[in-house]
Amino acid sequence: MSVLVQKFGGTSVADKECMERVLVRVQRALEQGHKVVVVLSAMAGETNRLLTMAKEWSDRPDPAEMDVLVSTGEQTSIALFTMLCKDSGVKARSLLGHQAPITTDCAFGKARILTIDHERINTLLEHNDVLVVAGFQGADCNDRITTLGRGGSDTTAVAIAAAVKAKECEIYTDVDGVYTTDPNICSKARKRNFITYDEMLETASMGAKVLQIRSVEFAKKYNVPVHVRSTFSDSPGTLVTKEDKRMEAVMVSGIALDKDQARFTLQGVMDRPGIAAAIYTPLAEAGVVVDMIIQNTSREGVTDMTFTAQRQDLEKTLEILEKVKQEVGATDLHYDTNVCKVSVIGVGMRHHSGVAATAFNALKDENINILLISTSEIKITCLIEEKYTELAVRTLHDTFELDKGPYGG
Amino acid sequence: MSVLVQKFGGTSVADKECMERVLVRVQRALEQGHKVVVVLSAMAGETNRLLTMAKEWSDRPDPAEMDVLVSTGEQTSIALFTMLCKDSGVKARSLLGHQAPITTDCAFGKARILTIDHERINTLLEHNDVLVVAGFQGADCNDRITTLGRGGSDTTAVAIAAAVKAKECEIYTDVDGVYTTDPNICSKARKRNFITYDEMLETASMGAKVLQIRSVEFAKKYNVPVHVRSTFSDSPGTLVTKEDKRMEAVMVSGIALDKDQARFTLQGVMDRPGIAAAIYTPLAEAGVVVDMIIQNTSREGVTDMTFTAQRQDLEKTLEILEKVKQEVGATDLHYDTNVCKVSVIGVGMRHHSGVAATAFNALKDENINILLISTSEIKITCLIEEKYTELAVRTLHDTFELDKGPYGG
Repeated sequence: MSVLVQKFGGTSVADKECMERVLVRVQRALEQGHKVVVVLSAMAGETNRLLTMAKEWSDRPDPAEMDVLVSTGEQTSIALFTMLCKDSGVKARSLLGHQAPITTDCAFGKARILTIDHERINTLLEHNDVLVVAGFQGADCNDRITTLGRGGSDTTAVAIAAAVKAKECEIYTDVDGVYTTDPNICSKARKRNFITYDEMLETASMGAKVLQIRSVEFAKKYNVPVHVRSTFSDSPGTLVTKEDKRMEAVMVSGIALDKDQARFTLQGVMDRPGIAAAIYTPLAEAGVVVDMIIQNTSREGVTDMTFTAQRQDLEKTLEILEKVKQEVGATDLHYDTNVCKVSVIGVGMRHHSGVAATAFNALKDENINILLISTSEIKITCLIEEKYTELAVRTLHDTFELDKGPYGG
Repeated sequence: MSVLVQKFGGTSVADKECMERVLVRVQRALEQGHKVVVVLSAMAGETNRLLTMAKEWSDRPDPAEMDVLVSTGEQTSIALFTMLCKDSGVKARSLLGHQAPITTDCAFGKARILTIDHERINTLLEHNDVLVVAGFQGADCNDRITTLGRGGSDTTAVAIAAAVKAKECEIYTDVDGVYTTDPNICSKARKRNFITYDEMLETASMGAKVLQIRSVEFAKKYNVPVHVRSTFSDSPGTLVTKEDKRMEAVMVSGIALDKDQARFTLQGVMDRPGIAAAIYTPLAEAGVVVDMIIQNTSREGVTDMTFTAQRQDLEKTLEILEKVKQEVGATDLHYDTNVCKVSVIGVGMRHHSGVAATAFNALKDENINILLISTSEIKITCLIEEKYTELAVRTLHDTFELDKGPYGG
């Protein structure tokens, strides 16, 4: 039994006409001899409608009940789409998260998938040609409804693909694949034919919204080939897959950027053990995602602590830092929202030296000052002034000749 | 543990303000020391919105998927209401049909409840003060979502009350109880304090839409006291309960009417064995509910067959009868939609004779011609010309002195 998983987002199931286009894709997969698991999101706008409703009812809606509410969005999608399937003579049935069952932990609103009953899904696929699965939802061990967080339908799709050992997990979206950089900023940006899980993870963490980051982690863990492609075109998209020899040949495969950043600095902090914990623990507890953390070498027992966080957490972060400032006896607190993160990404970096130097030189040649630097095995990130964003992206794209990939990577 | 079940219909949960009024009632029950099971319908208009949506998608929506779709209505209600509970510090949680679980047969769209896991509900009530249960829905033995048909939330409430041996099942609605007859027709109509299950069944079958008929059957079977009362007033409503001595003392307790009727007559039917089956089998198969069936004594081997059915089934019924007419060799087919059923109802009839004669005389005195008569142990039904409906109801109400009940029954 060859199984194909196809996931369609909210804009792909926005109305009946959209769903009919989805049906055509499903039927094509059936003609090719596959059984198909279709994972659907809520119809475009529906989740926001439900969230707005909840906010009218409560300033801080109970998270468990919130999940009961918002999970109706996907339930509506799968019921309507399965009706279309049946009307076309396709042997199909819908499947809710708790029916699969997709078992999650009980972190309502951001649950993690623990197990999927692959035997049950396989049995259902023996009796049906198409299973229409509600994305984004599961059930905890007490059979309470949970949701996986925004974009969670990607994770549902990849997790089911892993569970039933699907040939491929197709993610249909409104872009036609993953690009070497943002095409809106750099006209030379090229669609990639392949990208590794690790590169995709770094790209996703940089705010590229093509795939939910957790779905990529899942795909990597279970080695699920993920095909990101357009709902509105038949051309192949980008295959997210494990690293192979061809990819290692390429040093740099993409330039990512993230404008939703702010930089914070606590100056004149006494450099003593536990000081970092004193600063970052309350931030973590408040749910502030702290990114590039830089601590300068201490001078005369005094140091500066700098980090970046998301701009949407600005007020919360400042509030916490004001308190921390008193506690740790810092002399000053600065912040800056006119900043942007630009990253050079590539698995090939592991086997090539000099990538960082090349990147820094390229930025220097354009008189772009680098405010902070952080690096990982396959990424070099520079925080720069926001006004240089586009220039920096184009410069780096040119420098690493990303418009001329040897294998289309 | 004293448990009270409170059921609220769609108009009682139409918006946030309505739900806040419901919350007040629930809190009052909590103050009185009860644990409360709240059964909610979909918010007013929501089920129709979903049905309209389904019809846009499919001319004949798959019944199983239809249930997946419409059950989101109650899911939305219980999530929002439970949010309100939690915000007020009430220890509450929502409970969907499949979570209870309320197990039904697999007749999608009109499922019947088979079992309710009372142990699980009791356990949940030990950990919560309020359980907010989605009405109208259950799950079949394959864990597929089912719905109980329009008005099914009443049945959910009564069934849960039976399962957990609740003190009472309160049904909140937009009328303040059950009346001796329709107050819009007869200004002397009086709200009843009590009504027996059997009387309620006869009233419900006569089109009085206060309670879903199946919920009354359930209440009777498990002896659940059902209190029909108004969402918008604090005065006691009508208690639906088993027969007691006081009730037997009253011959007649109510006058019911049903205007949604049509009369059909097949004339000149050969009176031979199997002829009734030949007529009524195809009607039953088409889902036509046939009511008062009258077969005159045969004269010279030829008879007339007359029955009533609901006016909404008029075209379907005539279509079938035209065929049947050929098959059984009837000479004529007549029908009449200007008719109305008026019934005199009372458990006391079992112990009193002469009720029928009194009723017939009362109608005769007003020159109201009786077209058909049918009787049960506790009901006498007359089909009359529709134009006499109001006069007949008032006359019978006066005749049996229903404006002066001895025990308020």
